[in-house]
Amino acid sequence: MTDPRLADLAARSPGLRLLTEPADLVHYGRDWTRRWTPAPIAIALPSSVAEVQDVVRWANDHRIALVPSGGRTGLSGGAVAAHGELVLSLERMHRVLGFSPAGRLLAVQAGITLQAAQEAARAHGLIYPVDFAARGSCTIGGNVATNAGGIRVIRYGNTRDWIAGLTVVTGEGELIELNRGLVKNSSGYDLRQLMIGSEGTLGVVVGALLELTDPPPPAQVMLLALPDIDAVLAVFALFRRRLSLQAFEFFTDVALAHVLAHGAQRALAGEYPCYVVTEFDAADEAAQQAALAAFEEGAAQGWIIDGVIAQSQAQAEALWRLREGITESLAPHKPYKNDVAVRIDAVPAFLGEIQALLAREYPQFEVVWFGHIGDGNLHINILKPAAMDDAAFIAECERVTVLLAAVLEKHGGSISAEHGIGLVKRPYLESTRSAAEIALMCGIKRVFDPQRLLNPGKLFPVD
Amino acid sequence: MTDPRLADLAARSPGLRLLTEPADLVHYGRDWTRRWTPAPIAIALPSSVAEVQDVVRWANDHRIALVPSGGRTGLSGGAVAAHGELVLSLERMHRVLGFSPAGRLLAVQAGITLQAAQEAARAHGLIYPVDFAARGSCTIGGNVATNAGGIRVIRYGNTRDWIAGLTVVTGEGELIELNRGLVKNSSGYDLRQLMIGSEGTLGVVVGALLELTDPPPPAQVMLLALPDIDAVLAVFALFRRRLSLQAFEFFTDVALAHVLAHGAQRALAGEYPCYVVTEFDAADEAAQQAALAAFEEGAAQGWIIDGVIAQSQAQAEALWRLREGITESLAPHKPYKNDVAVRIDAVPAFLGEIQALLAREYPQFEVVWFGHIGDGNLHINILKPAAMDDAAFIAECERVTVLLAAVLEKHGGSISAEHGIGLVKRPYLESTRSAAEIALMCGIKRVFDPQRLLNPGKLFPVD
Repeated sequence: MTDPRLADLAARSPGLRLLTEPADLVHYGRDWTRRWTPAPIAIALPSSVAEVQDVVRWANDHRIALVPSGGRTGLSGGAVAAHGELVLSLERMHRVLGFSPAGRLLAVQAGITLQAAQEAARAHGLIYPVDFAARGSCTIGGNVATNAGGIRVIRYGNTRDWIAGLTVVTGEGELIELNRGLVKNSSGYDLRQLMIGSEGTLGVVVGALLELTDPPPPAQVMLLALPDIDAVLAVFALFRRRLSLQAFEFFTDVALAHVLAHGAQRALAGEYPCYVVTEFDAADEAAQQAALAAFEEGAAQGWIIDGVIAQSQAQAEALWRLREGITESLAPHKPYKNDVAVRIDAVPAFLGEIQALLAREYPQFEVVWFGHIGDGNLHINILKPAAMDDAAFIAECERVTVLLAAVLEKHGGSISAEHGIGLVKRPYLESTRSAAEIALMCGIKRVFDPQRLLNPGKLFPVD
Repeated sequence: MTDPRLADLAARSPGLRLLTEPADLVHYGRDWTRRWTPAPIAIALPSSVAEVQDVVRWANDHRIALVPSGGRTGLSGGAVAAHGELVLSLERMHRVLGFSPAGRLLAVQAGITLQAAQEAARAHGLIYPVDFAARGSCTIGGNVATNAGGIRVIRYGNTRDWIAGLTVVTGEGELIELNRGLVKNSSGYDLRQLMIGSEGTLGVVVGALLELTDPPPPAQVMLLALPDIDAVLAVFALFRRRLSLQAFEFFTDVALAHVLAHGAQRALAGEYPCYVVTEFDAADEAAQQAALAAFEEGAAQGWIIDGVIAQSQAQAEALWRLREGITESLAPHKPYKNDVAVRIDAVPAFLGEIQALLAREYPQFEVVWFGHIGDGNLHINILKPAAMDDAAFIAECERVTVLLAAVLEKHGGSISAEHGIGLVKRPYLESTRSAAEIALMCGIKRVFDPQRLLNPGKLFPVD
């Protein structure tokens, strides 16, 4: 602790845990992107709100930038500390603080993992319905920062829809309690909603009140094989009309090949261009018959080539693994990730243009498609050829992202559906937000964080 | 048009309709509150977004305050123009602009009434589920301004949950398109959500994309008579556990007496302290049996004294009229309105304190209670004795509102659940929002409206 600024922090907040070992700086200084070299000044691991306030006030006095940090599973560089920032990790603040049965609210500290929050909800006979593959590592604070979506959005919406209150330390170290679990509260601007999706640039989320809900009826999981993406859209429309869908996730043969190579079990004998994992309510015989009838109609139309319904919980999990294992299976190939969304009615036209664009611009790269379709969100992963230099690969991908962003802008889409802007999509924010909107956002940023110490360089094109 | 400023506006925007007749100034210068004397400079009735921008830019050049105006059914003075403001009425912008079946989105201009939007949704076999008694007069723009709640919040949430996009003219006349109907969009601050509930202080909402949903299953409507408010809470817990509730609205004998005096039909022979109108899914015989069983259990516990199930659509509407007619029936008594909310788990303790407070402080006044209970929202109306002077009555009510606000603050409640702050609750905002929050809100206001021309004096305690 030879840096006098860190010594001052230690003196001000005697109980605060601070790490400065090189291995810790690397571990806490990066997220699932691996593009930037971690270089934080230190890692602070507060165990209380008061300690978070100590850190933020200290940062204001010394003008040191802060990177709020959760599970660092982010894919947009939102939690990267590469320029001497102090990483403010919430990982020690991971407790459940309380449960209100009447309001069905679970109070948690921000550093709790999504999975731990889900398990706490189940212990009360309820569910916290936001869900995705990183559940074991990502934290509620990080979910709030990016308004995380995931695999149940068509049924349950995004994180935004399940946050009844937030406890936040602002950029000046003020503690604010936003909305406090009220269902109805028309008393001024909803700063809670403003905070959700702000990627740690407006304040440090230290706690949340999660709304819980009843578990869904028993569900069935089905894997479908389809001839092309048009068929995926047609089957989605058919299934949404006939069934009560909980999830409808699409991926391509290329994605499946990576998951299988990574150890997952093949579920269908043949090989097909596209696949869907779908989960739907199947509480009774009638619902199960409706699912079979929908499947048969899809098959009769030529939209579905093959399929399987899970006959056990283990088989359901195995089918889900085919979809949920994709991100991990791609990691060794250092994928360049696009996480884009358009309005649902724009999906067919957008897809047509974007497939043509990628075939034209990326003939040499392997492109892995998967996504949520039903909410207009597509993940397009470009895999780095093993022999290619990292920087050259990224430069080539970014050249094409400019073109992709232009197509998105034409269709009124979003350059980031659920990952956030962070460092990765910062150059493309203008494709999704107008100059007037960005000016308003910059103005809001100055109100919450006058010295611009919170996650500088993230989200905004110029900081 | 002798005022040179108005002549300038007419010259800049030749197609703009402007009204300056005294009767128009009165009509457009007030809302359902009648406390302030309308005194706008004029009424502008734009028919296009460009005309709205003309008005806002003109207001900036001349530094004239603007009052955005919808159906003026507000109960908090949010649409009052009593200080020479220009009223910017959206009433001519009332069209449905389009419908997207895939996204289930209805595009409307802000001046459309809630009822017209509901009917447009039904024409597509879907519903826009926000609903309350002012539906025929209130507008979507006004609903957005106050984040309107209403009688279906326990099933469907507030206006906030059904707005997929907003078209807004900011305080400087910039046009911004917020979120554009995207289901997933993690690309910077969600200014759409910030705008919802901002009471016309940040921008003029000129259009909205409304999310629609499937109609609920067939429902039944039941009127219950109960001995006290504790029984109302107990029956709510019972019914919520056993039935799929769409609405659960409570009112007292005093409220019923006013509605009956106003022409509604009595539905139960006896007279009881409390009543509930509840609507619940009753798609099949099993659901109807469940409702009867819940009723019988409530009766066996002594929580329900009497009740009736509507046997026809006409009877269902008659039962609903007992609840929905309350506000109108009270209007001749110039009620002082409190629209408060607490967390659901705080309702019993809060109710106990507040009943004692009102009995102690208002022994001379008639107090009419009604509310939504299931979402923690209570409407407490104090009726003016006919012989009492208006100003003396309001002064006496405001003295007690200070005490009420203190009880609310203690329970973490809200001084305005769904009416907004406007002029009426402005002195009490600090009971619900901390000084730090209010400072942030003022900062945001300056970003969107640097000259503070949009609805000045509303919402903020000091302007």
